[in-house]
Amino acid sequence: MMLNPADDTFAATLRDLLPGDLFRAPEPRHLEEPRSRFTGQCGVLACPRDAGQVAALVRAAAQARVPVVPLGGGTGLVGGQVMPDGPAPLVISLERMTAIRAVHPRENVAVVEAGAVLADVQAAAREAGRLFPLSLAAEGSCRIGGNLSTNAGGVNVLRYGNARELCLGIEAVLPDGSLWNGLTRLRKDNTGYDLRDLLIGAEGTLGVITAAALKLAPLPAETGTALIVVPSPEAALDLLALARDRLGGEISAFELISGVGLDFLAEHLPRVRQPLAPRPGWSVLIELGMAAGRDPQAALENLFAAAMEAGLASDGVIAQSQAQREELWTLREHLPEGNRLVGAVSSHDISLPLGEIPGFIARAGDAVAALGDFRVNCFGHLGDGNLHYNVFPPKGGNRADHAGQAGAVQRAVHDLVHDCGGSFSAEHGVGRIKVGELERYGDPARLAAMRAIKAALDPAGIMNPGAVLRA
Amino acid sequence: MMLNPADDTFAATLRDLLPGDLFRAPEPRHLEEPRSRFTGQCGVLACPRDAGQVAALVRAAAQARVPVVPLGGGTGLVGGQVMPDGPAPLVISLERMTAIRAVHPRENVAVVEAGAVLADVQAAAREAGRLFPLSLAAEGSCRIGGNLSTNAGGVNVLRYGNARELCLGIEAVLPDGSLWNGLTRLRKDNTGYDLRDLLIGAEGTLGVITAAALKLAPLPAETGTALIVVPSPEAALDLLALARDRLGGEISAFELISGVGLDFLAEHLPRVRQPLAPRPGWSVLIELGMAAGRDPQAALENLFAAAMEAGLASDGVIAQSQAQREELWTLREHLPEGNRLVGAVSSHDISLPLGEIPGFIARAGDAVAALGDFRVNCFGHLGDGNLHYNVFPPKGGNRADHAGQAGAVQRAVHDLVHDCGGSFSAEHGVGRIKVGELERYGDPARLAAMRAIKAALDPAGIMNPGAVLRA
Repeated sequence: MMLNPADDTFAATLRDLLPGDLFRAPEPRHLEEPRSRFTGQCGVLACPRDAGQVAALVRAAAQARVPVVPLGGGTGLVGGQVMPDGPAPLVISLERMTAIRAVHPRENVAVVEAGAVLADVQAAAREAGRLFPLSLAAEGSCRIGGNLSTNAGGVNVLRYGNARELCLGIEAVLPDGSLWNGLTRLRKDNTGYDLRDLLIGAEGTLGVITAAALKLAPLPAETGTALIVVPSPEAALDLLALARDRLGGEISAFELISGVGLDFLAEHLPRVRQPLAPRPGWSVLIELGMAAGRDPQAALENLFAAAMEAGLASDGVIAQSQAQREELWTLREHLPEGNRLVGAVSSHDISLPLGEIPGFIARAGDAVAALGDFRVNCFGHLGDGNLHYNVFPPKGGNRADHAGQAGAVQRAVHDLVHDCGGSFSAEHGVGRIKVGELERYGDPARLAAMRAIKAALDPAGIMNPGAVLRA
Repeated sequence: MMLNPADDTFAATLRDLLPGDLFRAPEPRHLEEPRSRFTGQCGVLACPRDAGQVAALVRAAAQARVPVVPLGGGTGLVGGQVMPDGPAPLVISLERMTAIRAVHPRENVAVVEAGAVLADVQAAAREAGRLFPLSLAAEGSCRIGGNLSTNAGGVNVLRYGNARELCLGIEAVLPDGSLWNGLTRLRKDNTGYDLRDLLIGAEGTLGVITAAALKLAPLPAETGTALIVVPSPEAALDLLALARDRLGGEISAFELISGVGLDFLAEHLPRVRQPLAPRPGWSVLIELGMAAGRDPQAALENLFAAAMEAGLASDGVIAQSQAQREELWTLREHLPEGNRLVGAVSSHDISLPLGEIPGFIARAGDAVAALGDFRVNCFGHLGDGNLHYNVFPPKGGNRADHAGQAGAVQRAVHDLVHDCGGSFSAEHGVGRIKVGELERYGDPARLAAMRAIKAALDPAGIMNPGAVLRA
């Protein structure tokens, strides 16, 4: 089915329907994505003030068969937020819909508009003595509508779940321009199909999320952080099981760090202090969040002693102050920058069944080595089975020299992930970059069902064409 | 679109395709539901051994346009498991597909076939030192496929979530007979639309769930139970917030009990010991599950002291032994039997935003009183905002005398629930009993999207016709 561009005639139609100040000239930030793989087009940029205006925009686009690209903070890593080709779209930026409508501390719920910046939602929760647990690198600029549309993950998924699990209800404009008020604050509601979870993670291809009711949690009164050296990824998994048995739901993060990542920091970011010498081959960063009256340092000391006795740890640091906690987290948070400075040949945001991880790491190392002389930095959210498995040139080498091998590396890694029952996109989504991977690895019955759902809800194919499914 | 009955010709077609011993004469249990509102029909009963056979059955039904009713344990309370009219269906009972395929204790995952009885899944987890937290009255006979298809709730939702949140992946036969292998053990997987959550809670209208990968949790090493008298539902909510701040994720259950429910037990089940005299007007049953080394009794004593000081509690019992724990739970678990013996005029499985509950209870009491002389037993999973709000004849009265008022009572209660932003079906689902309620209270844009999805995935309308959506 052919779509039409958001041209001057369409722009005039919109101006007849809606206040003129909704329409702005696009800035570079409306057309860029962080990895610079694509540059977006924009026929018309609209910045609506409320869901009714979003509905009017989508209704007009549906009538005129004009593509619509919903835009949040624009921080997505798979190109879901930019449409580089085809008829120029109507870009609907949620940047004016940033209200925190309500915080209900006793209910542990916040109701926010989709354009609210994640850090502002976190701050509003904290002011009410509550935690909004979604936390990720882009939190200062990503917007909650985008977090939900991509089902964002981050460092606290182990304990609190990803964006989908942190959402009770959404308000959304469907592809025909109808407004669904699903902004419920209910924990239980079994009245038909789960349209909420269908729109969450649909990356703007089934509608525009305009507001959400989010789950909050108690603010942990006490926190503790440790960096523990483990002999192997296998031991890291056993340590995770041990920690869970002892500390249940008090573990907020359990991050695997590889020696290669620490080498990169030493080479390129020597100002980042490394607390352990020699730099360990494998280590885990554990964070505990506990209620008042609990003693996370003692809990970490007991865990460390038990891990030593079981041969699961050989060294470690337990933070004794807030400054030491921050130092350990600084180390973790600079790993992506270290990667960027070295320059990856190919990066992979993968997940695996926990039990398959040690075998995968061994086999993937062999598979990558068979393709050439590379360095692998494998790190990430071990508690969720989510690894960032990134492949780099050898020391002194340059990614440009290996550009021709990137495809083969990615294929080898993703084939192995698939073979181990894993996913080629754990938290970043499909966007436009991974459409081919979804076609290659997706279950055929599921793909057919996805296409049928897309065609049923968006028969003209106007919503974010080319994302997730081929247009 | 007209459907055809599962007649002798269709039966013969199936026997040509599949082993003859898959087909059995239906027994009463295949055609009944617990509330005896409907009696099911059955043209052919098939008891397949594996997902491939389920797929062959559905494929044949799709070709012949014969309705299909998937059957688990048959314990659902809204008639989703029986088709009382229209062309006689093919009933596919999952009763032979009961295997616990694997338990992965280190991963906290169990992979089970859809026909596995919930109690058997719980037992398999426990044998591996793990907890499968889904727990509800019918657990001795309900099957996990039905639990997922109805997104079952129960007493542990507050801490662990409902069935949807306890499921990582499913295998399912879609309405065209295609087999979707979505049996992933992944915690994170952002590769397209959430078909899993769409089938969960679809009550068999979008396909047949044949297996599931389920989340397990650590077995709490220490448990503690208390019954605390509160001055009002408002105070119960404040006590919940206080308990959450102090004990975070260690609260496994937080159940509201009304004095009317205790009166019913005293009248009809005097053998159930009541630990508090006089019987309190409002009380809450709190259960803690804690890791080894923690002291739940001390935690409950501290909570109780703080609640007394804040005016949130006036009396209470903290179980000092396993026998006392069981006694408190026996009280809670007999409330439904007490209700049954009194005989409700109208029962309501509702949920509300937590903050709306006190106002709802006051207003609903007035609304019901305006309709006649009734007794209300309002109890349930307060932590989830899920109340069982049941309306009974006055003392000495009989439900039969009030049968003519049942509709008006239900309308008054559900209108008020809707007005408070609540749900007319918190955990039981829509089934066939609540199709009209969904049409009345459902958001029109969402209902249109549900119908579009149903038509897209099941164009002939063979899957459980008449459940959730009008056929």
